[in-house]
Amino acid sequence: MEKDSKLLEKSALKAIDVGADILELRIDFLKNPDPHTMQRLIYDLDYPIIATNRMQNEGGFFIGSEVERTDILIKAAKYAEFIDIELQTQSKYRKPVINKANSTIISFHDFKKTPPLKDLLKIVDESKKIGDIAKFAVMPHTLKDTLTVLEVLTNVEDTIGIAMGDMGRYTRIIAPVFGSPITYASLDNASAPGQLDVESTKNILNQIL
Amino acid sequence: MEKDSKLLEKSALKAIDVGADILELRIDFLKNPDPHTMQRLIYDLDYPIIATNRMQNEGGFFIGSEVERTDILIKAAKYAEFIDIELQTQSKYRKPVINKANSTIISFHDFKKTPPLKDLLKIVDESKKIGDIAKFAVMPHTLKDTLTVLEVLTNVEDTIGIAMGDMGRYTRIIAPVFGSPITYASLDNASAPGQLDVESTKNILNQIL
Repeated sequence: MEKDSKLLEKSALKAIDVGADILELRIDFLKNPDPHTMQRLIYDLDYPIIATNRMQNEGGFFIGSEVERTDILIKAAKYAEFIDIELQTQSKYRKPVINKANSTIISFHDFKKTPPLKDLLKIVDESKKIGDIAKFAVMPHTLKDTLTVLEVLTNVEDTIGIAMGDMGRYTRIIAPVFGSPITYASLDNASAPGQLDVESTKNILNQIL
Repeated sequence: MEKDSKLLEKSALKAIDVGADILELRIDFLKNPDPHTMQRLIYDLDYPIIATNRMQNEGGFFIGSEVERTDILIKAAKYAEFIDIELQTQSKYRKPVINKANSTIISFHDFKKTPPLKDLLKIVDESKKIGDIAKFAVMPHTLKDTLTVLEVLTNVEDTIGIAMGDMGRYTRIIAPVFGSPITYASLDNASAPGQLDVESTKNILNQIL
């Protein structure tokens, strides 16, 4: 954990250096994350942080109980600007996290398909009832699916919408055109299929916005 | 004309230098274009050329009769890879141009609005009946309008679809994702609202394709 934490700090400083405005700390990428080390790391970084501790059935790697997973988020909440918590997290675990958070991103993932427009609008609506920003990332099978993701964004505010994979890669770039408050980019290795790096993303956004 | 022609040749060489794969020669941007000088210029450039001589009511600057306008295109057709001719050009002027052309781009412009999906599909269908590539450029009033342009492209092939203006700028970049065979970029001064330069366009496409 100590070694992991040092590597993570190094990556964070690199991300800041190449122009990231906010950093997503994927706690579930670490081997044995503990609540106090995480809290201390976020404090030390002294930079806007999204703390995420993704559960396995939403594409994450956290090994442990829901109590353990959310306990880390509760500690992280003290200094993180945003806590990302899944819409499908059970309410009894989700509520204490939301109560402690400065701001929240309520996230939804579908790695198999792109739900229809009306389902996605419902997901966004539910997410925004319990948190500040809604985030949904879904897998397109056709280019029309990627347009469905963008169409959701024309109907709502404070929402991050992503079509994953190679087919959806372009949606990450143009999301800000559709009012998406945050665009996710990777440093070296993408944490999600289709992700571009920070520098390319920044350069492209400067051209099209 | 002689001076114009020299400047144009200089611009063309610059466009080739920064990586354009094909050049659009906007004949209507020249003061007094004559058929033989145009034909000679295209021959001398020895590079893939789209010859366009846009009429005024489709956003162009050609001053003269339809006979004069299309006579230049007929001469240009000898060495140009593509001739761009408007869908609304009267059939008696359009046909001789198409007959002489190696390949054709049949273009449609609406600088005021974005027609509904079914109207755009009809326009593309008509265009492809008489030529090789359909091109439509329309003005969006909402982001939903820009998605309509992209939705057309998911339904057809060999079609260039552009949402103009600042709101539609991103469609020029991502058009190739939707199978658009050609993306238009400018050298210095954009020839259409929302156009990006060649280098930026190339760089961005390398990232997202």
